[in-house]
Amino acid sequence: MTGFDTVAVAGLGLIGGSVARDLAAAGVRVLGWDRDPAAVAAALGEGIVSAALGPGLEGLEAADVLLLAVPVGAAAAVLEAAIPRLGGIRLVTDCGSTKGSIVAAAERLGIAERFVGGHPLAGDHRSGWEASRTGLFSDATVYLCPTEQSSPGAVALARELWSAIGGVPVELPAAEHDRRLAWISHLPQVVSSALAATLAAQGFRRADLGPGGRDVTRLAASSPSLWADILLDNAPRVVEGLAALEARIRSIRALIEAGDAPSIWTALHSAPSWSEANIEANERFGVREGP
Amino acid sequence: MTGFDTVAVAGLGLIGGSVARDLAAAGVRVLGWDRDPAAVAAALGEGIVSAALGPGLEGLEAADVLLLAVPVGAAAAVLEAAIPRLGGIRLVTDCGSTKGSIVAAAERLGIAERFVGGHPLAGDHRSGWEASRTGLFSDATVYLCPTEQSSPGAVALARELWSAIGGVPVELPAAEHDRRLAWISHLPQVVSSALAATLAAQGFRRADLGPGGRDVTRLAASSPSLWADILLDNAPRVVEGLAALEARIRSIRALIEAGDAPSIWTALHSAPSWSEANIEANERFGVREGP
Repeated sequence: MTGFDTVAVAGLGLIGGSVARDLAAAGVRVLGWDRDPAAVAAALGEGIVSAALGPGLEGLEAADVLLLAVPVGAAAAVLEAAIPRLGGIRLVTDCGSTKGSIVAAAERLGIAERFVGGHPLAGDHRSGWEASRTGLFSDATVYLCPTEQSSPGAVALARELWSAIGGVPVELPAAEHDRRLAWISHLPQVVSSALAATLAAQGFRRADLGPGGRDVTRLAASSPSLWADILLDNAPRVVEGLAALEARIRSIRALIEAGDAPSIWTALHSAPSWSEANIEANERFGVREGP
Repeated sequence: MTGFDTVAVAGLGLIGGSVARDLAAAGVRVLGWDRDPAAVAAALGEGIVSAALGPGLEGLEAADVLLLAVPVGAAAAVLEAAIPRLGGIRLVTDCGSTKGSIVAAAERLGIAERFVGGHPLAGDHRSGWEASRTGLFSDATVYLCPTEQSSPGAVALARELWSAIGGVPVELPAAEHDRRLAWISHLPQVVSSALAATLAAQGFRRADLGPGGRDVTRLAASSPSLWADILLDNAPRVVEGLAALEARIRSIRALIEAGDAPSIWTALHSAPSWSEANIEANERFGVREGP
């Protein structure tokens, strides 16, 4: 590892904690901060974090890279608190599920040159330091969203950082990222939650479902706080996706009401890239595909 | 195994094939039929099926039990074809995902006394003999839906059959089964397909999704023919469930448009039986819960 010796990780939850574990395993010195002192204590106790930053990010100046891994709604405030302490830091990046607002915040705060937004497509319904683990980013797509002014060196360092822990960096503009993620991530999340809530309202428990139904509702156990942040930050695009999905469900309902078997068949028939053979291949070899 | 020596399995797909494998492993003699001669040949070749029935179910009379494992839309016709050959068969049962219509068919055909509807809550998006496997029913809920006239002996035999291959029989009336399954199985299926179709229409492939999104869309690869049958056979109840889900999604969309963070939090917050701890427990120990 050539570009950085010390990485400060702000936010030691599922994502930040897992990054810290992989970096520490790769021999990188990790400085840690979390609003919850128990998470910092655990990370220190396990030897993952070498030193804790102060409550106001004191000590940050010693790092080469600052990685924000806090909820989307908190990221801009933590970034702002870091500004006076950035010292010689050459890359500031983050892990948020939306990119437009944090990239705009970096530009507004005058650190656009050394900021590159990041978003690893990894994780699950769990959260917190106790859910963090090594290898979470193995073969995972990691979106990198530069600002208008990101330096080539900052972008190269962001690529190096994620590649070092197994991720597959894919660059794209923040606006395109947010549009894309509204469909492929935020929409599945809302659908899973909406289905779980609909079933719960009928008195069903998740244990009543078969394996297929349990797959569909797994994401419903995700943190409602993290997701309320994400959905609001990406509201216009999420709303568009939800409206399209509602229309699709409504049209299938009409076909069932009409008893139109051939059209139901067509509505349920998956495009080749969504078919069984494709599922087997994806799940056996992992997902490496970019946009 | 005391109640039966020979079981005829009509339909050697994922479900019928897996039943045949488990029964054969338990020392039961299995007679096989499928509309596709290749499936019968494969089952004979692997030594799972001891003898093939004729194209018109010739040879069925030698069985103690007839198990139908054909698509919902074909079951009544196969049942009708079997009537002249039931001989001393003491139990006729099936594996369909809906129960009202097949139970009514058994009553109409005059075999209500020895008929018990069955539905194992097992399987996935795959289908066909090549997808069949041993152990598919281990710890799976198996719904048993007697007719108005099912004999206690037939019900006991159905319980014995499924228990012998690892299932957990749960009796309930056919109408209640179909209402219940509309929510816990048919609704998740349609939602998964609708989401996949919505994403495909935007040009996305399943490989573009993260692990959570792949979970939500896995069922979309299920057989459209099997599911068109099921949805039409259970249309009024499926339509009710879809309308409820549409309303739920619409209300979340309105909250996002309104920027109402606390209400979004509430909408996304799962009831305890849908929470993370519950997911961990279910997936570690398997699902054994009845209605």
